[in-house]
Amino acid sequence: MSKPPIPVGISARHIHLSQEHLELLFGTGYELTNFKALSQPGQFASQEFVDLQGEKSTFPKVRILGPVRGQTQVEISLTDAAKLGVKPPVRDSGDLDGSAAITIIGPKGKVELHSGVIAARRHIHMTPVDAEQYGLKDHDFVKIRVGDENRSLIFDKVHVRVTNASSLECHLDTDEANAALVKTGDVCTIFSN
Amino acid sequence: MSKPPIPVGISARHIHLSQEHLELLFGTGYELTNFKALSQPGQFASQEFVDLQGEKSTFPKVRILGPVRGQTQVEISLTDAAKLGVKPPVRDSGDLDGSAAITIIGPKGKVELHSGVIAARRHIHMTPVDAEQYGLKDHDFVKIRVGDENRSLIFDKVHVRVTNASSLECHLDTDEANAALVKTGDVCTIFSN
Repeated sequence: MSKPPIPVGISARHIHLSQEHLELLFGTGYELTNFKALSQPGQFASQEFVDLQGEKSTFPKVRILGPVRGQTQVEISLTDAAKLGVKPPVRDSGDLDGSAAITIIGPKGKVELHSGVIAARRHIHMTPVDAEQYGLKDHDFVKIRVGDENRSLIFDKVHVRVTNASSLECHLDTDEANAALVKTGDVCTIFSN
Repeated sequence: MSKPPIPVGISARHIHLSQEHLELLFGTGYELTNFKALSQPGQFASQEFVDLQGEKSTFPKVRILGPVRGQTQVEISLTDAAKLGVKPPVRDSGDLDGSAAITIIGPKGKVELHSGVIAARRHIHMTPVDAEQYGLKDHDFVKIRVGDENRSLIFDKVHVRVTNASSLECHLDTDEANAALVKTGDVCTIFSN
């Protein structure tokens, strides 16, 4: 059975904040403003930004994604990391123990984040219904074929994440997107040889 | 027969200058100073730098590689390109017709380069002896397997370049290196399935 292609979404650098950190950065009782819905159900790009300060440089105007989470998490590419002077591990979202440190600067305050900076492991979001269609289960790893004819490639170690609140999409960061010459709205296919 | 692994070299952004442009940027009769030999025979990192100015930003201190060439060529990653505000095609070295424009700024002058900016197509340098060992010829395309266990991948469309003055090496740019978590001195293997 030929499996349908999977949409690709490219993640630019962004941050998820805990309510505690949001209030330290923006003031007591602050709430994020929904700017635009993201493809994953309930997730949104907020109107708010922070600056991220590393050992070597600062990135201004990094988008906060909402809603707030239990832990603050910063997701950057390894190109970003080299420029900032931080050394994030490649990790799944939420797996933050021993990840990299950074300083977060908001309009009302500053947070010295001791861990929470990662380069996201590439992954595919899908529902249980999708998973059944592809013959996969949560935490499987697959290869995907993706990319422009000049830079096509096969990513190994793509982590399958199955939840009810998912929209079928393969998430790559900007380094990965550039290495394959792929952009949001393109598609990839699960590769089996 | 199992084929030996191939060393990987990561190319950071850099520029090759024509003698004419070198003199416009550094003064009449100027010659590049050899700072450090590169892996490819006769090629060197010079002591000299220029600034690269795009529509959106400027990169200071971009290394000039020597010796001078017939045409000026700027090689940047697509992450660099987005930051600079230029749109280079993915091209082989020397294939510059219709490639992107940029402004080059040196200590003694400025060059408005109308074309010459590319994102380099990934490639493997090898000698005819290497090519025979791998069963390849000039202008073949191969797949290579490369990368850290967290980000391993298979790059398709890797261009084989065979010349006598070569040192066996697979050249990737920084986006590609980050997508695979690979660094200069690591190795890749030719992938055949």
